[in-house]
Amino acid sequence: MSQFKRELTVAWGDCDHAGIVFYPTFFYWFDTSYHHFLASRGTNLHDLRERYQAVTPLVDVGATFRSPVTYGDVIQIETEVAEWGERRLRLNYTVKHGERLVATGFEQRAWALYVEGGGMRGGAVPEEFKQLLS
Amino acid sequence: MSQFKRELTVAWGDCDHAGIVFYPTFFYWFDTSYHHFLASRGTNLHDLRERYQAVTPLVDVGATFRSPVTYGDVIQIETEVAEWGERRLRLNYTVKHGERLVATGFEQRAWALYVEGGGMRGGAVPEEFKQLLS
Amino acid sequence: MSQFKRELTVAWGDCDHAGIVFYPTFFYWFDTSYHHFLASRGTNLHDLRERYQAVTPLVDVGATFRSPVTYGDVIQIETEVAEWGERRLRLNYTVKHGERLVATGFEQRAWALYVEGGGMRGGAVPEEFKQLLS
Amino acid sequence: MSQFKRELTVAWGDCDHAGIVFYPTFFYWFDTSYHHFLASRGTNLHDLRERYQAVTPLVDVGATFRSPVTYGDVIQIETEVAEWGERRLRLNYTVKHGERLVATGFEQRAWALYVEGGGMRGGAVPEEFKQLLS
Repeated sequence: MSQFKRELTVAWGDCDHAGIVFYPTFFYWFDTSYHHFLASRGTNLHDLRERYQAVTPLVDVGATFRSPVTYGDVIQIETEVAEWGERRLRLNYTVKHGERLVATGFEQRAWALYVEGGGMRGGAVPEEFKQLLS
Repeated sequence: MSQFKRELTVAWGDCDHAGIVFYPTFFYWFDTSYHHFLASRGTNLHDLRERYQAVTPLVDVGATFRSPVTYGDVIQIETEVAEWGERRLRLNYTVKHGERLVATGFEQRAWALYVEGGGMRGGAVPEEFKQLLS
Repeated sequence: MSQFKRELTVAWGDCDHAGIVFYPTFFYWFDTSYHHFLASRGTNLHDLRERYQAVTPLVDVGATFRSPVTYGDVIQIETEVAEWGERRLRLNYTVKHGERLVATGFEQRAWALYVEGGGMRGGAVPEEFKQLLS
Repeated sequence: MSQFKRELTVAWGDCDHAGIVFYPTFFYWFDTSYHHFLASRGTNLHDLRERYQAVTPLVDVGATFRSPVTYGDVIQIETEVAEWGERRLRLNYTVKHGERLVATGFEQRAWALYVEGGGMRGGAVPEEFKQLLS
């Protein structure tokens, strides 16, 4: 399956009182990794809206924390398209500090279309988009 | 099971470009609700450290998003201790906008003890703490 | 001058490794207080856009930190319209923990109008809006 | 004066409903740039604490916003030590999108020493630290 990697340094402001990453920050990193992944394939949310009148809102998300990271740690985040549904895609995330596993997570995203007059409705993911992320 | 409710107004800064809550914010709300819940029972993380040399780090978390909320919406967040394990507790969260379900989520937290010389190890949740949150 | 007060409890996730509020959080509180202030007067950013085709973007902001606050502290934030310019308004913020001064800050906001075809231009603050916040 | 530059891509989650960066995010970037600057000179907050029993808390901060940036924009942040006081340092920040000026800002930081028994007191900035950042 298609993969995308990026690296970042844990910031002072990403950590909590206990000196480890405040866990909602992991989801900020997951979401941001998704956008970096799209950008690496030459697209982004504005482009998806123009081309397909579509957005990819979150349906289900989750994370499992294996070991802590702290201020100054350089971590690697791997984004993987794990599954295509007819109207959904699932992204898996793996966070590592060197060889050490820090966290895993996922985002289940819907393919949703803007409806004239307001609102959204689910729709089939276009083949073109699947190929773009493959 | 024991429950705790609080209400908050969705802030401008909680929303993203699409005008709905940026999803990591839900986890900030879950975590904050846990702390408010502890406070409502007369305890907090400092107290847990003093009394038990313990912290309650996250092991697994997740959320399901049902309907969007936006800037200015007054939402209700319900915190519930859903399950006690020998070394764990599970908190369930329900977010509503009036009668409308917005999101559900959970946090699986470990009971971890500070070890002399540094580091942490798992431990049995004290009965006293269980009763405090019951 | 017109004033608005609100109270909040410092969250675990608002604090950094040193156990005190991570300072950008103060600006989140200032911005959120502005919106609560608008709401207390029966308006908000959507309403301003509909009524006046206007927004109130930030021009200058600042803060001075006097004493720290930490997780669990209940603080009071006072919002004050300190000055009306022809095309601007200045908001002053005062953060207290009981009688103790924690921080002061300000936001200089412009009155900006949506221009047909895209973009924004400065405009005179309507008397009606001044009276609403007075 | 000594300078440090870094580049980053504006994330979806950094933007607000209006589609531009939510302004407290700039301060997160300033603070993070300071830490990256320290790291580029081989130090960090843990090292400062060990070597000097010191921290560098914020006293005054400010920012001026010149032009907006949005999701996907690649911006450059320049950090400069603008002034050394006996017990303070001032950092200036400049944010650009290509040649376009986005924002300027500053942080006035104190040199504060841990006092035995708890608390902090101001102290003179060591020459060694000044040279490290020069």
